[in-house]
Amino acid sequence: MSPTPRSDILFPAEPTQRALARELYALAKDQPIISPHGHVDPLILADDAPFPDPARLIIVPDHYVTRMLLSQGVPPAELGVPTVDGRPVETDGRTIWRRFAAHWHLFRGTPSRLWLERTFAEVFGVETALGPQTADEVYDTIAARLAEPEFRPRALFERFNIEVLATTESPLDDLGRHAKLAADGWGGPGGRVITTFRPDNVVDMEFEGWADNVARLGEITGADTGTYRGYLAALRDRRQAFIAAGATSSDHGHPTALTLALSETEATALFERGLRGTADAADAEAFRAHMLLEFARMSIEDGLVMQLHPGSVRNHNRWLYETHGRDVGGDIPQATEYLHALTPLLDAYGNDPRLRVVVYTLDEYTFSRELAPLAGGYAALYLGAPWWFLDSPEVLRRFRESVTETAGFYNTAGFVDDTRAFCSIPVRHDVARRIDAGFLARLVAEERLPLAEAAETIVDLAYRLPKKIFKIGERL
Amino acid sequence: MSPTPRSDILFPAEPTQRALARELYALAKDQPIISPHGHVDPLILADDAPFPDPARLIIVPDHYVTRMLLSQGVPPAELGVPTVDGRPVETDGRTIWRRFAAHWHLFRGTPSRLWLERTFAEVFGVETALGPQTADEVYDTIAARLAEPEFRPRALFERFNIEVLATTESPLDDLGRHAKLAADGWGGPGGRVITTFRPDNVVDMEFEGWADNVARLGEITGADTGTYRGYLAALRDRRQAFIAAGATSSDHGHPTALTLALSETEATALFERGLRGTADAADAEAFRAHMLLEFARMSIEDGLVMQLHPGSVRNHNRWLYETHGRDVGGDIPQATEYLHALTPLLDAYGNDPRLRVVVYTLDEYTFSRELAPLAGGYAALYLGAPWWFLDSPEVLRRFRESVTETAGFYNTAGFVDDTRAFCSIPVRHDVARRIDAGFLARLVAEERLPLAEAAETIVDLAYRLPKKIFKIGERL
Amino acid sequence: MSPTPRSDILFPAEPTQRALARELYALAKDQPIISPHGHVDPLILADDAPFPDPARLIIVPDHYVTRMLLSQGVPPAELGVPTVDGRPVETDGRTIWRRFAAHWHLFRGTPSRLWLERTFAEVFGVETALGPQTADEVYDTIAARLAEPEFRPRALFERFNIEVLATTESPLDDLGRHAKLAADGWGGPGGRVITTFRPDNVVDMEFEGWADNVARLGEITGADTGTYRGYLAALRDRRQAFIAAGATSSDHGHPTALTLALSETEATALFERGLRGTADAADAEAFRAHMLLEFARMSIEDGLVMQLHPGSVRNHNRWLYETHGRDVGGDIPQATEYLHALTPLLDAYGNDPRLRVVVYTLDEYTFSRELAPLAGGYAALYLGAPWWFLDSPEVLRRFRESVTETAGFYNTAGFVDDTRAFCSIPVRHDVARRIDAGFLARLVAEERLPLAEAAETIVDLAYRLPKKIFKIGERL
Repeated sequence: MSPTPRSDILFPAEPTQRALARELYALAKDQPIISPHGHVDPLILADDAPFPDPARLIIVPDHYVTRMLLSQGVPPAELGVPTVDGRPVETDGRTIWRRFAAHWHLFRGTPSRLWLERTFAEVFGVETALGPQTADEVYDTIAARLAEPEFRPRALFERFNIEVLATTESPLDDLGRHAKLAADGWGGPGGRVITTFRPDNVVDMEFEGWADNVARLGEITGADTGTYRGYLAALRDRRQAFIAAGATSSDHGHPTALTLALSETEATALFERGLRGTADAADAEAFRAHMLLEFARMSIEDGLVMQLHPGSVRNHNRWLYETHGRDVGGDIPQATEYLHALTPLLDAYGNDPRLRVVVYTLDEYTFSRELAPLAGGYAALYLGAPWWFLDSPEVLRRFRESVTETAGFYNTAGFVDDTRAFCSIPVRHDVARRIDAGFLARLVAEERLPLAEAAETIVDLAYRLPKKIFKIGERL
Repeated sequence: MSPTPRSDILFPAEPTQRALARELYALAKDQPIISPHGHVDPLILADDAPFPDPARLIIVPDHYVTRMLLSQGVPPAELGVPTVDGRPVETDGRTIWRRFAAHWHLFRGTPSRLWLERTFAEVFGVETALGPQTADEVYDTIAARLAEPEFRPRALFERFNIEVLATTESPLDDLGRHAKLAADGWGGPGGRVITTFRPDNVVDMEFEGWADNVARLGEITGADTGTYRGYLAALRDRRQAFIAAGATSSDHGHPTALTLALSETEATALFERGLRGTADAADAEAFRAHMLLEFARMSIEDGLVMQLHPGSVRNHNRWLYETHGRDVGGDIPQATEYLHALTPLLDAYGNDPRLRVVVYTLDEYTFSRELAPLAGGYAALYLGAPWWFLDSPEVLRRFRESVTETAGFYNTAGFVDDTRAFCSIPVRHDVARRIDAGFLARLVAEERLPLAEAAETIVDLAYRLPKKIFKIGERL
Repeated sequence: MSPTPRSDILFPAEPTQRALARELYALAKDQPIISPHGHVDPLILADDAPFPDPARLIIVPDHYVTRMLLSQGVPPAELGVPTVDGRPVETDGRTIWRRFAAHWHLFRGTPSRLWLERTFAEVFGVETALGPQTADEVYDTIAARLAEPEFRPRALFERFNIEVLATTESPLDDLGRHAKLAADGWGGPGGRVITTFRPDNVVDMEFEGWADNVARLGEITGADTGTYRGYLAALRDRRQAFIAAGATSSDHGHPTALTLALSETEATALFERGLRGTADAADAEAFRAHMLLEFARMSIEDGLVMQLHPGSVRNHNRWLYETHGRDVGGDIPQATEYLHALTPLLDAYGNDPRLRVVVYTLDEYTFSRELAPLAGGYAALYLGAPWWFLDSPEVLRRFRESVTETAGFYNTAGFVDDTRAFCSIPVRHDVARRIDAGFLARLVAEERLPLAEAAETIVDLAYRLPKKIFKIGERL
């Protein structure tokens, strides 16, 4: 899918740079989408069933949207967000949609505004601008489209020009949806829809139900996860299953970037305290930190690229968590230290060409101080795209302005959309391509880079670099 | 007062954006000034006496000016700043003014330069640029104006198009100046000049004379402030008196943003240690942190908006403090943590629509990491304008660039001038309006926001939002 | 040497600002270079021998270059970087050069790219753009030039229009190279090549061989450095020798900015624990911190300007350090706190006009929060130019945007190139002049500063300020 022809959205206003940005963007805009990190439910593509109504598709699951309305006093229940205790919430899609439209002005200047507006226009062909008066019209147009076969997930996947989409599953997932995809010629190694190994729920002792999860891991693999060695064996086993389902990377979402090199004896002791229920917060942190070294070792063996997503304080909004549960907009970033935290990992494997670690951040105030010097100084380290609260035009621009001078372009791993919102994938990648085009245009206009090299670079950033760094299409 | 017609000061140089900025600014520039937070002495408006000479009005009390000269070796005494021990200082206004003018180049690129220069030109009609050669000419022009009745405070208030000006008083203040203003039809609830409840000197045990202040609080209110319960009752009593004098908000200037939810027993113990003189620094910090929760509870009862100003290390310049006392330019910002610090307050009341907390910062390196996600995720929280060292064109722009994407415009509380310099109020608000016009112009030029919505937004930012968020004109 | 005539490199693309930037830059570009801080080996100028081959001159010693290639898997040994244990490395200059050229794309958008490219063109007259295909051609052109007498160091020094170049030596250096320079009319007080007193290796107990270095300090000076008093006397003695060799400043590279005011008894105890080998990390930190106060006292006596370079974690890349030693690209910045760290020093001497301290940073996330308020509030403090990882166009611009509003221009100390790469000195200074021209052009275009004042300012920044602040040409 090509976005609106000749649109100058997000390009610099200054004419010389705008002309250059257009020229560079033209090279990137039709590159296939590589989506190596995201949270689309693979069932959507395995089943290829029609999407539900517009509110259930677009509003209810989008915590960027529901948190903004909460910040202005609209309770999530009025937007249909399910409650933990089953207390009833709004169920009428049209009512939810009208409430959302009534607060549309809150999103001025936000990436949500940009993503939604362009998704309405470019994916669903809505020709009217959203607003309180046009809520029903927009709703009806989208609803009508969703009933058409061209708006089934797989048809959109083709239209979106997605080459590869990675979903994210826990080791406890049976990968059945990916098996269905593989059976249909859509999944498996080298396939169009692949999985990612995300072991947080069996690694983080503070995760609700960790010990039960470890027990289930044992049942699934037949390993004795009552012992630390059995636990590691089970993880290795699941990684093989994930690789067989197409995975090329693992993903690790930790509160901090801490890594630790413990002896097997120390790690075993922590693991056993965890299972006995006597581990404290420091034990849990140490175990998570140590496991990053274990996973690095496994990556060196089996080839999975490691992704590290630190810095989110989960469920900071306690009332929201207690009422609506996890992943509904109550997480907040915290200051994140990388230099000392990553030292044990980097001491052990930082210069090892067999390892590849992609590090993300929610704390942009580490870009030039820690992240760029680390990525520009260690062979194993790459910088992930600005993430979550930061995957927005202004921060994508500041990212290039802050890391390129020390890390260059080629130690950055390309854009990841990190989204559950399948229909927003093309516009999210398009935003990143436009910002990169604008940044490169400035370098050219300021005589810092010849146009021919900028042209090569933008295609690298849009397509070649993420494909290479995430080993997309490679057999591990 | 409208600033110079057709001036393009602070607008982006690029013609498309400049034209848009002009158009947007035209909508904002004549909006009445809402000044919900500042430090003008209410006596100025209660008495409506002529201002003193230019140096005493403009140089001596402006610590932005005297600290810059100190940083280049000019002692504050040579600029007329009074000493703690009464040691004589320069008293001749013209001499002070000449010293200031001789160092005018130091202010290039600073907001002080902008504020002063435009105040000279637009308030006092000075047509000559200030410099060492023109010091006397500028001084004489301003001095002549100050003798005219049109330059009395109330006349300027009208000319400045100020709708409401909030001053700041301690609970120990008898509010007599505000009573005078009310008697003249200028003050009281819904009035033009209102007060703000600022209890630091009876809350912060590290404040010089805290125990004496608490005793005086008891005398003023008739409550027994020798007990914690009596102390709380006295504070509630004074808040009612402040509300009767027009207050719509309280203000809290703390070294950190720490909040704590202590039991009454714990709080009582701290309070008693304070009175006995045995409280240490940790006790003082805990008591301040706890009192923020008490004040939040009082706000839920009486409706005052809470303002929190954390992050200033007071009297960092020890020699300056010892020689010239408080508030003369010796304070320096420190790194400020919000996420964990505010958790107890947010756990208790963060989603409560009855509470409104406006949080400020001196640490811009929290904009996108903590402040925007918090304000964009809690109903009770709003972001105050960049403050003090940060209320400058470049930072006002970075503020919009850094917080809008996550918090939008409508979780920000509008500009506050925070100033003692009455004559600089219009230009300070004008600077903020120009920067917002330029930021919105860029969004329009980059096709991120239609002009009509930008036009609505700039009026919201200049007038409607601060009026609403600070409950200006509302009866509590 | 004037850079390419009419080149618009690094100027803003917008025509109004570009025209102003050209006009301002024209005033700065031919100003003599004041280089008050750098790491050129004085032997180069003392001997005035021809430079070695292009790879040995440009690639092997430049850790910006070798670390970028390491980050993409090219081991430093393949680029000729010597090993600690003498294990053989690549020695063929042409082979090294080809490897470098093959990875030239990695440097897109980096200052290394800019420095190297312009050095090739403007210093060596290379007319072909570097790339894998042109590696030999560029190599041969440079090699041919290096054989010509006009490319001897002293000839280049003249052509580069350097007025004064400061090198950096340890107190253990015999200053023989500077004696040779003085004998040739190039060195000594007021000379063209001067030294800087850098005592880290006799101050930092964690420095390899510290105790031996202290012993050698005693031998050199005849003082009894087995006692703390003797140690201080020896340092005072060496400072006099450095002043006799032209030094106008000292330089202190510490992990943090901590300062401490210890009593002589406390300092003596630390010193003695250090000599006995029983000092721990906290002792070493305390001793370094205390010595900054001692050096401030010595500066007040002898007039040397103090430079403080905190925030580098040395040898973070452990494998690199173990294989190739110090100063080969393995250092990484850490978060740096200034406010509390500098308090003891500022309490003691912060307002003393006899002291001058230039503070640098590797952590730009302190610019507006701590550094600008400190420099704008203490007479003794100046801000050094963005340093090392930060001496790049984007950060030089952010530095002006972030510190000017609070510290003005006149509390900043001018650009320092901080380089060992003699041939890159003119282009590095030129980059800073161009960025300052662009920043001032924006102030003028936004009607914040009249052109005449911008014109005076750019010459101050390029020449007058560094000369004055570093006391260049003054007799101490």
